[in-house]
Amino acid sequence: MSEEFTFSVAATDGAARSGEIRMPRGVIRTPAFMPVGTAATVKAMYPDQVKALGADVVLGNTYHLMLRPGAERVARLGGLHRFMNWPYPILTDSGGFQVMSLSDLRKMDADGVTFRSHIDGSTHRLTPERSIEIQGLLGSDIQMQLDECVKLPNTEEAVEKAMRLSLAWAERCKVAFGDQPGKAMFGIVQGGASERLRVESARALVDLDLKGYAIGGLAVGEPQDVMLAMIEAVEPHLPAEKPRYLMGVGTPDDIVEAVRRGVDMFDCVMPTRAGRHGMAYTHGGRLNLKNARYAEDTRPLDPTMKCEASTTYSRAYLHHLVRAGEILGMMLLTWNNLSYYQELMAGLRKAIREGRLEDFVAQTKEGWARGAMDDGAGEGAGEG
Amino acid sequence: MSEEFTFSVAATDGAARSGEIRMPRGVIRTPAFMPVGTAATVKAMYPDQVKALGADVVLGNTYHLMLRPGAERVARLGGLHRFMNWPYPILTDSGGFQVMSLSDLRKMDADGVTFRSHIDGSTHRLTPERSIEIQGLLGSDIQMQLDECVKLPNTEEAVEKAMRLSLAWAERCKVAFGDQPGKAMFGIVQGGASERLRVESARALVDLDLKGYAIGGLAVGEPQDVMLAMIEAVEPHLPAEKPRYLMGVGTPDDIVEAVRRGVDMFDCVMPTRAGRHGMAYTHGGRLNLKNARYAEDTRPLDPTMKCEASTTYSRAYLHHLVRAGEILGMMLLTWNNLSYYQELMAGLRKAIREGRLEDFVAQTKEGWARGAMDDGAGEGAGEG
Repeated sequence: MSEEFTFSVAATDGAARSGEIRMPRGVIRTPAFMPVGTAATVKAMYPDQVKALGADVVLGNTYHLMLRPGAERVARLGGLHRFMNWPYPILTDSGGFQVMSLSDLRKMDADGVTFRSHIDGSTHRLTPERSIEIQGLLGSDIQMQLDECVKLPNTEEAVEKAMRLSLAWAERCKVAFGDQPGKAMFGIVQGGASERLRVESARALVDLDLKGYAIGGLAVGEPQDVMLAMIEAVEPHLPAEKPRYLMGVGTPDDIVEAVRRGVDMFDCVMPTRAGRHGMAYTHGGRLNLKNARYAEDTRPLDPTMKCEASTTYSRAYLHHLVRAGEILGMMLLTWNNLSYYQELMAGLRKAIREGRLEDFVAQTKEGWARGAMDDGAGEGAGEG
Repeated sequence: MSEEFTFSVAATDGAARSGEIRMPRGVIRTPAFMPVGTAATVKAMYPDQVKALGADVVLGNTYHLMLRPGAERVARLGGLHRFMNWPYPILTDSGGFQVMSLSDLRKMDADGVTFRSHIDGSTHRLTPERSIEIQGLLGSDIQMQLDECVKLPNTEEAVEKAMRLSLAWAERCKVAFGDQPGKAMFGIVQGGASERLRVESARALVDLDLKGYAIGGLAVGEPQDVMLAMIEAVEPHLPAEKPRYLMGVGTPDDIVEAVRRGVDMFDCVMPTRAGRHGMAYTHGGRLNLKNARYAEDTRPLDPTMKCEASTTYSRAYLHHLVRAGEILGMMLLTWNNLSYYQELMAGLRKAIREGRLEDFVAQTKEGWARGAMDDGAGEGAGEG
């Protein structure tokens, strides 16, 4: 534990790094995958299961929590950690991304965004200051600046305008956040698919001397090579001694490639959402349990994994649960998927520290390519 | 464990009994509540949680399992115990009740019932012999005779006809079941709300010398006093040395009253179904977590209980999860409810063995009447 928010890199392997973020609520081992706890729950999982899999931090969504149950209510109830029984670090997003993707009738201006709740149609407003205030009411350990995230592809003009607005909001968020020992506020590099804009955004944010830097506005439909090119463009401009967080990413393959390029933190709904839709991530790639080929397959999902969901239940049983729409199917597949993601991160961390990252990556990709453990039943190379 | 199926009564208190059913897969402590595992899963629960709460046996539904995944498939996969990771005793119903309540276009004749699946419209047939064959393919430890269960109220003529058909089918099921050491086939007393028909049914079934006797066709909408009158009418005619199973019952109050009248076994979807609909059973009665009064209630559901779901999470959090439709809300409330039911059964067993059942019942009912632990927020006397 630590009274301050600190980050240290213990080992590097090429551009990849492994280290630790320390703060009062715990240590985050990096590279880290943060399960998404949208509405104060990592869906279909008990919090102690999430921790036991090796997650050091979960993500909460400001947009969802401000609408229901409400930030002031969470504060009155003792904060998000107590509310959801997760005493370890929590990172919250700013709400901006989900305002864009989920709300109705949103209206941007230079000062913030006004929108209508997708739940009950009520009107709400997010400004840089209100976003930080909400994240503070929630008790978030790592808070994100409000930004404007445009869809890709888009015009250079629209991307540049959003990037400059996001920079202005980063400054306002820094002021609003102030000095909070043990907590951090991260800036978000924007700039779409433009290297020029990405570099400009990164440099300007670094001048603000924030505690960490996210790369945002990716994983929004662009090809993987565009995403990786943007990481490569930005990485040399980010300070080595600050954590780097690639927001909303991604497939196992996306994560592996981003770790190779120096990213430290990830979040994505993929393992949890896929688990509620019959999909299982394994060392042999992704399986679609809805497929009739599993109806009498007595093998477990992946006997090499540690979690019971992966080793104890047959694919035939999981196929049945998925077909029947049973909650237990979602519980077991989500458990397996988060287990796979956390084992992947543990493997990446260990490989970096042992200086054999490229071997680990090659072996991992061979496993995906070989298909579902041994019979070619996999859906392919860890793609989402 | 035991190679044979045996039942022994260790203590009585009035008409109530406490004892043990022994069989190769385990011991069932009576009075016992059997969680319902409809489609090879106790909904929203991991099987090891169900066991840890004190459930010695779960119920599987022949109707659901014969349609999906299919009895022959379950047999090829090693039987229901292996399929659902429940190595302990399983009781299966005959399928008859759910054919009546769930299927389309059913047609009864003296030899069985033909019906269409509610899942895909396919046509199926259940006869006494096929029901026992299916239960055997599933590997069920306690199998139930096929019966005809009519809705109440009904004409005496219709009830009598169904009772006589059920008796004829009991004989055929006994022959079909044959001699299976370590397993049992139970007969089902029918006769609606008629004492005369119930007594006739019980006597005729006892003449068949079956290993246990169920009371069926109750908890189908009749008032509680009718149900209890039927138990009282039947009980003196059932052999003391055989277990007695009240099918599909019920609320905590129904169970307490039936135990006082000599019933040993129960099953009901109430704790699991209620848990998926925002309802919590506690020592202070039933709470409806959807209610806005819980929005900022920081107390746990019931701090006197053993299970984490009852003691660790605030009502405010559960209220939020239920309102947001989160799976974790269903998981936690189901866990709490099954925990409450199993603690109630453990309390009844202990009280019977200590000769203080009436005191225990009075205290239990006082708790329900007092309302939700201390503030009158309960919904009342343990009613479903």
